[in-house]
Amino acid sequence: MEGGAGRDLECQKIMDGKASDRSAVEKGIPSCCLKAMASAPELEAKCHSTVVSGWFSESKSCSGISRYFNNPMWPGEAHSIKVEEILYKERSEYQEVLVFKSSTYGKVLVLDGIVQLTEKDECAYQEMIAHLPLCSIPSPKTVLVVGGGDGGVLREVSRHSSVEHIDICEIDKMVIDVSKKYFPELAVGFEDPRVHLHVGDAIEFLRQAPEGKYDAIIVDSSDPVGPAQELVEKPFFETIAKALKPGGVLCNMAESMWLHTHLIQDMISICQEIFKGSVHYAWASVPTYPSGVIGFLLCSTEGPPVDFVNPINPIEKVEGAIEHKRELRFYNSEMHSAALALPAFLKMELNLMRRLASMLKPFSD
Amino acid sequence: MEGGAGRDLECQKIMDGKASDRSAVEKGIPSCCLKAMASAPELEAKCHSTVVSGWFSESKSCSGISRYFNNPMWPGEAHSIKVEEILYKERSEYQEVLVFKSSTYGKVLVLDGIVQLTEKDECAYQEMIAHLPLCSIPSPKTVLVVGGGDGGVLREVSRHSSVEHIDICEIDKMVIDVSKKYFPELAVGFEDPRVHLHVGDAIEFLRQAPEGKYDAIIVDSSDPVGPAQELVEKPFFETIAKALKPGGVLCNMAESMWLHTHLIQDMISICQEIFKGSVHYAWASVPTYPSGVIGFLLCSTEGPPVDFVNPINPIEKVEGAIEHKRELRFYNSEMHSAALALPAFLKMELNLMRRLASMLKPFSD
Repeated sequence: MEGGAGRDLECQKIMDGKASDRSAVEKGIPSCCLKAMASAPELEAKCHSTVVSGWFSESKSCSGISRYFNNPMWPGEAHSIKVEEILYKERSEYQEVLVFKSSTYGKVLVLDGIVQLTEKDECAYQEMIAHLPLCSIPSPKTVLVVGGGDGGVLREVSRHSSVEHIDICEIDKMVIDVSKKYFPELAVGFEDPRVHLHVGDAIEFLRQAPEGKYDAIIVDSSDPVGPAQELVEKPFFETIAKALKPGGVLCNMAESMWLHTHLIQDMISICQEIFKGSVHYAWASVPTYPSGVIGFLLCSTEGPPVDFVNPINPIEKVEGAIEHKRELRFYNSEMHSAALALPAFLKMELNLMRRLASMLKPFSD
Repeated sequence: MEGGAGRDLECQKIMDGKASDRSAVEKGIPSCCLKAMASAPELEAKCHSTVVSGWFSESKSCSGISRYFNNPMWPGEAHSIKVEEILYKERSEYQEVLVFKSSTYGKVLVLDGIVQLTEKDECAYQEMIAHLPLCSIPSPKTVLVVGGGDGGVLREVSRHSSVEHIDICEIDKMVIDVSKKYFPELAVGFEDPRVHLHVGDAIEFLRQAPEGKYDAIIVDSSDPVGPAQELVEKPFFETIAKALKPGGVLCNMAESMWLHTHLIQDMISICQEIFKGSVHYAWASVPTYPSGVIGFLLCSTEGPPVDFVNPINPIEKVEGAIEHKRELRFYNSEMHSAALALPAFLKMELNLMRRLASMLKPFSD
């Protein structure tokens, strides 16, 4: 418990862009970062007969057999969601895609054994990742969504009447098709005429993008093991910064403050070098994510200053936004500001890092 | 999913003080509120061989046998924490008390199969439940803690140099003894000379308390099934209000906004009748509680107005508070204000309730 609530086990840094070969990274990934068995569920099934990462456990009860899908988190804990019916299970070119109907969370989307969303609590993640950046800048017009193949972020971005053009780059078409079939309340995002879908590698897409094209880029990626691995590395952030306008904003999924303070430190550190406007961390409650929270990295490029704490473009004042497609269920301006408040242990660790960085600066000049 | 993210299954109201007979209540408790098997772990063990509410599941892995303690939440999900070693397991007059060492959450205290605290994240709960009320009033002097036998709330209350007298009323001496042995970082709270321990029934204790004695009352109870059942009923809140000074404050543990919006509505409704100052709901992230959050009911009696949103007595300005015994790890003034921000689905449901109540009022006059 030393070092505060957020620091747990040692973790090798995988953020410097060098470890891009997947098998090499997996060898190098220490236990605290490895959602290992998620990528080899068959292996896990042979090893574990009951509570098993990324696989089902069956329990015989007085009333029959119950099946639980265990959401692998970090070693030492597992979150089990009771399965009523498996609806879909296939392997795409990139990952295993699973959809099941749960007893109390609605339908659940799982990629490589990790829960991506449930119908019950997706509102928190989708609404926060979209509106934290979009409500921080006046009148966003051009937006890029990286990942987000379920369509939920598109649904949210579409609430903004100022937006004229939405590019989405998702690598795995199976995710899109599965969402359209099983998650219509998210896939409705694809129906907006402002949406332009690109199926492929986001890094390549961004390299081709005109400099300074976007007001906002939202990186709705899965965890950085597997297809989304390169999406937490320095070159990717550099490409993003280049594609943003001056005073443009990035909002990037950024792990859990309880489990991976050090990964957050790494991301912030990299982004502070690249994004000359400002860099902030925010978080939200999402029950079905590890430790019940998810974080967001908010960055702005050099240009008109961006105040991420007090939304300059509050959703309550955007015409038609609250009721667009379906009512907002989680986000509001109060929750926006609240998301930027950080617990003492996290502030302390981030301050420590900032002081260390400034102490080392003279030696690197 | 109809009705928003917080509403799930129907739930019988058990808040009106009539259902005080335990077995009657258990019969009346619908499945969505019933942490049933937690009170009968032997029964559960016979029914479930693997993922079992309030009991252990064992999994054989390539590296041996792993044991997981499953924290029963609501039907349809379970949170498993890996057990390294069971340290203590006895039944008191009131409940089963279990302490185990976990792999990644430190030591864990479990009462009747429900996780009460872990070393890793107890800071969030203990700090918020104490400082949300105490930082909302100027110079608190006399404080009562109901429950809180682990000592954590006492540790936090003790940070306030203005406090002269702390009563604590805990029903179960075993909890206190176990905490002193296994959770010294919480039990340190008992060492403060301002603390006066009363082992017994809090309702009886409060009935005997002089009217208007306390500046603040903190109700750190376990869930309302078992020994803490009467602590969510109307008569108890009435007794609390009587024992508070004008402009005195109550902070009461208040469930999860994701799982029990209706229970929260009930508590607020009752408190609005009884506490003529103000009634607020706040929440905090606690990974090992069901859905990863816990709520707090904040109420003030008629008298000097209390602003729960903007702390009038910020902890950063209380001399010696931050470093008292051990550094604050979670709470700060930003997190205080942030805790009062409520997601859209909860605001909507609470507003709906308020409007309904005012519509019905003319008929009840």
